[in-house]
Amino acid sequence: MSTSSPSLCIQLINPNTSFAMTELMAVTARQVAASGTEILAVCPSEGAPSIEGHFDEAIAAMGVLQQVKAGRDVGVDGHIIACFGDPGLLAARELARAPVVGIAEAAMHMATMLATQFSIVTTLPRTLVIARHLLHQYGFERHCAALHAIDLPVLSLEDGSGLAQQKVREQCIAAKRSDGSGAIVLGCGGMADLAHELTLELGIPVIDGVSAAVKMIEALAALRLTTSKHGDLDYPIEKTLSGRFKGLNTRDLNV
Amino acid sequence: MSTSSPSLCIQLINPNTSFAMTELMAVTARQVAASGTEILAVCPSEGAPSIEGHFDEAIAAMGVLQQVKAGRDVGVDGHIIACFGDPGLLAARELARAPVVGIAEAAMHMATMLATQFSIVTTLPRTLVIARHLLHQYGFERHCAALHAIDLPVLSLEDGSGLAQQKVREQCIAAKRSDGSGAIVLGCGGMADLAHELTLELGIPVIDGVSAAVKMIEALAALRLTTSKHGDLDYPIEKTLSGRFKGLNTRDLNV
Amino acid sequence: MSTSSPSLCIQLINPNTSFAMTELMAVTARQVAASGTEILAVCPSEGAPSIEGHFDEAIAAMGVLQQVKAGRDVGVDGHIIACFGDPGLLAARELARAPVVGIAEAAMHMATMLATQFSIVTTLPRTLVIARHLLHQYGFERHCAALHAIDLPVLSLEDGSGLAQQKVREQCIAAKRSDGSGAIVLGCGGMADLAHELTLELGIPVIDGVSAAVKMIEALAALRLTTSKHGDLDYPIEKTLSGRFKGLNTRDLNV
Amino acid sequence: MSTSSPSLCIQLINPNTSFAMTELMAVTARQVAASGTEILAVCPSEGAPSIEGHFDEAIAAMGVLQQVKAGRDVGVDGHIIACFGDPGLLAARELARAPVVGIAEAAMHMATMLATQFSIVTTLPRTLVIARHLLHQYGFERHCAALHAIDLPVLSLEDGSGLAQQKVREQCIAAKRSDGSGAIVLGCGGMADLAHELTLELGIPVIDGVSAAVKMIEALAALRLTTSKHGDLDYPIEKTLSGRFKGLNTRDLNV
Amino acid sequence: MSTSSPSLCIQLINPNTSFAMTELMAVTARQVAASGTEILAVCPSEGAPSIEGHFDEAIAAMGVLQQVKAGRDVGVDGHIIACFGDPGLLAARELARAPVVGIAEAAMHMATMLATQFSIVTTLPRTLVIARHLLHQYGFERHCAALHAIDLPVLSLEDGSGLAQQKVREQCIAAKRSDGSGAIVLGCGGMADLAHELTLELGIPVIDGVSAAVKMIEALAALRLTTSKHGDLDYPIEKTLSGRFKGLNTRDLNV
Amino acid sequence: MSTSSPSLCIQLINPNTSFAMTELMAVTARQVAASGTEILAVCPSEGAPSIEGHFDEAIAAMGVLQQVKAGRDVGVDGHIIACFGDPGLLAARELARAPVVGIAEAAMHMATMLATQFSIVTTLPRTLVIARHLLHQYGFERHCAALHAIDLPVLSLEDGSGLAQQKVREQCIAAKRSDGSGAIVLGCGGMADLAHELTLELGIPVIDGVSAAVKMIEALAALRLTTSKHGDLDYPIEKTLSGRFKGLNTRDLNV
Repeated sequence: MSTSSPSLCIQLINPNTSFAMTELMAVTARQVAASGTEILAVCPSEGAPSIEGHFDEAIAAMGVLQQVKAGRDVGVDGHIIACFGDPGLLAARELARAPVVGIAEAAMHMATMLATQFSIVTTLPRTLVIARHLLHQYGFERHCAALHAIDLPVLSLEDGSGLAQQKVREQCIAAKRSDGSGAIVLGCGGMADLAHELTLELGIPVIDGVSAAVKMIEALAALRLTTSKHGDLDYPIEKTLSGRFKGLNTRDLNV
Repeated sequence: MSTSSPSLCIQLINPNTSFAMTELMAVTARQVAASGTEILAVCPSEGAPSIEGHFDEAIAAMGVLQQVKAGRDVGVDGHIIACFGDPGLLAARELARAPVVGIAEAAMHMATMLATQFSIVTTLPRTLVIARHLLHQYGFERHCAALHAIDLPVLSLEDGSGLAQQKVREQCIAAKRSDGSGAIVLGCGGMADLAHELTLELGIPVIDGVSAAVKMIEALAALRLTTSKHGDLDYPIEKTLSGRFKGLNTRDLNV
Repeated sequence: MSTSSPSLCIQLINPNTSFAMTELMAVTARQVAASGTEILAVCPSEGAPSIEGHFDEAIAAMGVLQQVKAGRDVGVDGHIIACFGDPGLLAARELARAPVVGIAEAAMHMATMLATQFSIVTTLPRTLVIARHLLHQYGFERHCAALHAIDLPVLSLEDGSGLAQQKVREQCIAAKRSDGSGAIVLGCGGMADLAHELTLELGIPVIDGVSAAVKMIEALAALRLTTSKHGDLDYPIEKTLSGRFKGLNTRDLNV
Repeated sequence: MSTSSPSLCIQLINPNTSFAMTELMAVTARQVAASGTEILAVCPSEGAPSIEGHFDEAIAAMGVLQQVKAGRDVGVDGHIIACFGDPGLLAARELARAPVVGIAEAAMHMATMLATQFSIVTTLPRTLVIARHLLHQYGFERHCAALHAIDLPVLSLEDGSGLAQQKVREQCIAAKRSDGSGAIVLGCGGMADLAHELTLELGIPVIDGVSAAVKMIEALAALRLTTSKHGDLDYPIEKTLSGRFKGLNTRDLNV
Repeated sequence: MSTSSPSLCIQLINPNTSFAMTELMAVTARQVAASGTEILAVCPSEGAPSIEGHFDEAIAAMGVLQQVKAGRDVGVDGHIIACFGDPGLLAARELARAPVVGIAEAAMHMATMLATQFSIVTTLPRTLVIARHLLHQYGFERHCAALHAIDLPVLSLEDGSGLAQQKVREQCIAAKRSDGSGAIVLGCGGMADLAHELTLELGIPVIDGVSAAVKMIEALAALRLTTSKHGDLDYPIEKTLSGRFKGLNTRDLNV
Repeated sequence: MSTSSPSLCIQLINPNTSFAMTELMAVTARQVAASGTEILAVCPSEGAPSIEGHFDEAIAAMGVLQQVKAGRDVGVDGHIIACFGDPGLLAARELARAPVVGIAEAAMHMATMLATQFSIVTTLPRTLVIARHLLHQYGFERHCAALHAIDLPVLSLEDGSGLAQQKVREQCIAAKRSDGSGAIVLGCGGMADLAHELTLELGIPVIDGVSAAVKMIEALAALRLTTSKHGDLDYPIEKTLSGRFKGLNTRDLNV
């Protein structure tokens, strides 16, 4: 895998259909990627323009799976699910040969290595429950001191007004002051470009999951570690998917 | 809702595309339904013939949502997600006006009211992790003494040989003997028809989620309680879903 | 059990000695009961007039057991423990042949099926710890966002002034606004009559355990499921109880 | 409290009606008591001869409360609930002015200070769930490696045959070998006399709750610490208990 | 061990190098010690003057181990680690033949026997995370309602101004009012002298770990129970420690 | 930090004094390090030759701190604590300016991204409790299916016989077969060289913490994220350490 000239292709999957957000995340990803790493940024052609609830997540998962399959066909070395709810994460791991990392997951893991407690700043209050479920699933409920929402929709991060960005900044400052947290996790892929400047301004690690996931995939790839195919993450049992799911038929995955 | 002649329409959604299993579950559901309750048994026309992993679950969730939307349009009084992984449960609750109950959820809740510890008997070992995640999500990890798999695929319950049924029976007997459990939860909708006879044979409650969910929906409906629309289960934020998800566009849900 | 004309007798046990509260709960129970269900509302002739602490609960448990035994002797199909602390629940399950459901238990279970987080509104602050212990025992500590007390004794709900009812209403409104909960569980049997109107006024499920328990017993009975007699909920080991406990001697329970 | 000649009266409450077991525990208690400590060993005149389930526990709790009240009236300095289920513990704390300690509680606390993991050896399998609930309530579920039952009733410890004692010994030896535990907690007051010899024979701490509770009460008394009367353990709210509970009326507790 | 004239020597190890604090704790320890108990108060000759973070704790652990070894050589009957972080607790247990108790541990255990919830009042905010980790390790995270810091360094308790003491008092009063706790644990050995007067003033148990640990060691010693040498707390595997750790070489511990 | 030619210096701290093990780990670290990454492998000149218990860990922590300080003085970009107990991790984070990662931590984090459950294979049974505590501290107790020990001391991995390596291999094979785990974490730095060949042989990810930590530090460094200095991981409060701890005096850390 990493012979003479190290080279890696990481598929960055934006689960929503926003090209602007895909591009924003791609830029951030490329900034942190190693020199030999190519970022293949994609988003589903069909789906929801933003992911702001359980329903949107279910739809997003389909887009993720479609892209993972496509990425797999072209032999990418890793897949990033670039939505803070990590939609379809375990399903994607079944489908993938390469490692799959969610941006919430990557950011939370890193946060626990930099501080004993972290806070999360996300977009709409209704998505907080999704973040809480992830904290629980990943084992970090005790490491998260508090969750905050700026109470603006995801796409407000793309409207050019800077209002959402300003609110993120204010929430981060408030969180630092009140939560007793040593680090902040940004709870939306659309905030990816804010992490570094906020880290500098606040003087504490402000972590973006997109960049975190890029480095996590690079790390796993360098270690030649990939998704376990023993047990419940083994390739999906081959069966004939019908109708609009035909595109997800998975014959010969194991080859 | 329950004026002079009580009448209720419960949509029983089989998330896989197997008509045989849909019918088997419908028969069981109708046997336990109150006299005024109609069971509208459906399955998606497109999707996977059986649900045996995270990937299948993600696809199943789409079928569930499509059916919930259809059921909503015809004004059903409740929706049952009749696959033991309860795929798409929270997404379906966002979409629905009426209550939504999963069969794993219903069976597990009931088990905790009949015994201090229960065991689960399901189909393939790779689905055990899904059941474990549900136990955790619902709060029942300490109430479940053990999980068992018969190591046969879901559709073996439909092959007419009776082998899978025999294995379920053996696992239940073994679980009663070894787990210290007072009740058993059957971990697949395709086992719905076995619960009552196993209850009689084993002398302990053997619980089928399909029937449990029917009664749970009837209970909620009689209490005129329905899915909360305050907070994260509120109707999905209206946005334009594109492509094959167009069918899920949710304009005017709130009306 | 449910042959041609379905008929069921549910024993509604008010563990305190207040006839007024027994009657209030019976009225609510009968409003939600199925047409074939008879509600046999009882309270102990001896005991405490209200249950507001661990000490009261211990006394209440004795009244519950006495009533369960009596109900068992007349062949009721289920027992409801109608005090929010669910006093004597597991002991009653040992004694009973039929299902036993507590009102806290029933309400909490239903709340988790309608919302991802619920709040509790109860009477005196000193009973909050009891509710907290139940949340923990049932597995719902993560599903409960907050607990509130109106800081009035249980019997103030019976004093005709309407003050307690007004405070319950205010606490529910405050809880909806501040807790991020999608549903509210009323933490006292004496609040049973308030649930439906508060549900309508607040626009979120406000759940009363008395009605919830009636439907839960009906559900279990229809499924022909009853308390497990295998293991720790088996009938009490027969022994000679002396003195004022003679009335609880349990010879021939198993017949 | 402990001025010139230290003197203390500890009420040892056996919640069952067995005089033999009361005496056995009193002997053990006196062996470990400080020179100035008097052990007032009592058991209820009415109740169950042994406590082997949730039902027995509920009855035992009444005997405990009656005795706590009597002990309070004569001014004892502490109360021990000498049954491994710690029946009525929080209710007794409400009633008492002095500290109240259960024998399961005392033994488990001490075990965690001597070993990182302990095992429990008790009598009947059906009581294991009670011990498990206590582990959970006290916070020691992760400190307990395993629970074992000798599968003989409590009173077999009093039958003079030595069979039960032999089985306890065998289970302790097996637990030491297989559980990876560093200490063993004896799960019945009737095993109190076995702890020290088993400690010597096995070479690991084998802990009896009766002696542990005596020392815990002495410790609290020496520190002039007693049950908090602030909040939920405050004296029971005064109300008129009727019938056979009259004896528990609690007027003027606060004086 | 406790034949005719009971006599016990407890080594009180102050892990910091402050003689004043060592003496303050020794005075408190002697006030509560039984008549036959000698308190051997020591502090390391080398180390940190106060312990206020993870780094200080690591250094403190070395002083603790050195002292435990010295105490062991002179045959003390128990060791107390008198710093609220219980630094080096499990390491000290490996090294010791006698029981070892930390003051945080002792105070927390006792608090749970006096109240259903307790609060902690400590010195610097940065040490709160250490207390939180201990709560978790000991199993008491659900028993602790809140943690407070007076925001003054440990040694301010020794500066003679009384300011720190006044702040402790204010925090205790605030905690009683706002936390719903029935007891308070003082989170620093340097607060040992305040516990009894605050208990009297506030009317709730205010618990000092130094005195609590003295009585806990006396209790264990009277029961002839000591640190388990079976499993992970067995004496350290003998190996040659080099350099400045030579003093900790442990040859022949087992003799 | 990573301008034109990326270059990084990672300090690999072996907390024991074994040069052979330091070298073995350095070789592995260098194999996975990025081309611009220098591995500065060190071990303390004083301390214990291997770390096999809580006592050894306390000593190891001192060596770690000494090395972190030295590494800090020469400006390394990250520190690895290369012993599976992660001794001194939080203390080291206080001291360090750069990120600090433990090898247990790094391996466990990665394992959860590759499989839903992992197993651990370590050396001596007495160290299992340390791994269990780490799982708990990091939040991974539910992600670890089982822990195994080969029952040979750490240094047997260095004796050239290959026996320990053979036992590791056997335990890994057994764990794969029996635990239902999808990945294995090697529980000792001395097993670093085995991970890749076992990954190939077993067909599941077998993860070595040394390599995992190298990549984790590289990842954090590339993201310009470092240990939070806000709150409890801030630099140690400056105080005069005396005696053999003088070398750890921390004046001017903040500069």
